[in-house]
Amino acid sequence: MKLLRVGPAGAERPALLDAEGTLRDLSGLVADIDGALLADEAALDRIRAAAASADLPALDFEGLRVGPPVARIGKVVCIGLNYHDHAKETGAEPPAEPVVFFKAADTVVGPHDTVLVPRRSTKTDWEVELAVVIGRTARYVESAEAALTHVAGYAVAHDVSEREFQIERGGTWDKGKNCETFNPLGPWLVTADEVPDPQALGLKLWVNGELKQDGSTADQIFSVAEVVRYVSQFMTLYPGDVINTGTPAGVAMGRPEPKPYLRSGDVVELEIEGLGRQRQELKDA
Amino acid sequence: MKLLRVGPAGAERPALLDAEGTLRDLSGLVADIDGALLADEAALDRIRAAAASADLPALDFEGLRVGPPVARIGKVVCIGLNYHDHAKETGAEPPAEPVVFFKAADTVVGPHDTVLVPRRSTKTDWEVELAVVIGRTARYVESAEAALTHVAGYAVAHDVSEREFQIERGGTWDKGKNCETFNPLGPWLVTADEVPDPQALGLKLWVNGELKQDGSTADQIFSVAEVVRYVSQFMTLYPGDVINTGTPAGVAMGRPEPKPYLRSGDVVELEIEGLGRQRQELKDA
Repeated sequence: MKLLRVGPAGAERPALLDAEGTLRDLSGLVADIDGALLADEAALDRIRAAAASADLPALDFEGLRVGPPVARIGKVVCIGLNYHDHAKETGAEPPAEPVVFFKAADTVVGPHDTVLVPRRSTKTDWEVELAVVIGRTARYVESAEAALTHVAGYAVAHDVSEREFQIERGGTWDKGKNCETFNPLGPWLVTADEVPDPQALGLKLWVNGELKQDGSTADQIFSVAEVVRYVSQFMTLYPGDVINTGTPAGVAMGRPEPKPYLRSGDVVELEIEGLGRQRQELKDA
Repeated sequence: MKLLRVGPAGAERPALLDAEGTLRDLSGLVADIDGALLADEAALDRIRAAAASADLPALDFEGLRVGPPVARIGKVVCIGLNYHDHAKETGAEPPAEPVVFFKAADTVVGPHDTVLVPRRSTKTDWEVELAVVIGRTARYVESAEAALTHVAGYAVAHDVSEREFQIERGGTWDKGKNCETFNPLGPWLVTADEVPDPQALGLKLWVNGELKQDGSTADQIFSVAEVVRYVSQFMTLYPGDVINTGTPAGVAMGRPEPKPYLRSGDVVELEIEGLGRQRQELKDA
């Protein structure tokens, strides 16, 4: 299923994009799409049954804002340098074990919302990423095989990054990853049953219509399953938590000078095979 | 005022510790103590008025668990190496600007709850810290003077840290800071009007009755006001967000070998002048 949330920021209603591409209102069936729903097999089955019987009211996409597909996200764990080609372009050795950093859940916005270039930023960069949404608490998961049973689904994430804040201002990367609006998510959450192989997804990102990133999750150093297993050794993952699993090559930082960092007025589009497409316009904060 | 939350984990009720040390039930007056309440001057005034008129029902502390003093914490921003004496004991240069890392809000537990030593941990360490709770959205705050107007109050925080996970496993510090139960907070939130100088607070921490940390916020490299101003240049701070402002000298990592890291059965007590006292027993995860 493709689950999404539509409406004004903070007042989104739950919806489903059906097999025919019709938007269906779920608000008569469930209160919202959040960790509690994703952990609730019976509720998900009710949505599946209602979708199959086609008796959900249709909604008109026209003029409707799309919000992030998950409400009340607990934490956003991010994996750095997780593609061979991206590690290479940044001049870093492929890491021996996953690099972990955080984005605050309050950086998450809808897939077509405005992204703000922070004040005093000169190095705002793009990163298309496969986001994993947790559906079942993961705590010291024993094997990569078991790990995927904790995944509710997948979505497109934009891990917007300010490179000066991230790398040149001392301390950890978090300083350049948590600016307001720095994590567009969506348009929808595709449930795990519809993503048979998360290691075979093409990812693309365009800036002002020009293709900048063109990768595949096949190039990930640590697979989705291994990332979930690994992270669960250090922290507990709860339903509604999100993991951004890293970006392929092609970011501004990896290009020759003058590096084409983002500015107000730029338009970024992102797409992952089977997971939909985002489009954001940049504006000054 | 001293605001706290008492009762079983996940079902705490709001309360107040009055000037006579009597616990008063606030659940007839406000739904909970969270960011929304801390941003609501009128509601805080209602609590103040009720406390002054002494017509709030008394509660018996006996047998009552104390929870974290703030519900629905958005994010926990942490400042590293922020005391001259602690930077020295770790062998680090005092940082030129604040070092920022994150704890997930789901690591926050009550001040007397059990702290879990993670599986395969050999270097679980203690850190007493002054926590700052945000009451008013802080976004590009212009001056340190203005910054303090965004602070709702202060509390004791224990920034439990696994040093191998933090330092020896690649990537950022976050890996050793986010294990389950790693952020006891409380017992209460002391509103900012009762903390005239956040840079003059003694902090102490004992392990099994032995004094290990004995510092003062006067030794902070970056003051509370400067930290709030600084962090707000990189991310927006919302009501209910918490900043752990760093720890003074005396952690296990700073001691001669064999370093006295925490194990199951150890008891840690923490105290900050005017902000109350915590006590946790360690157990294996």
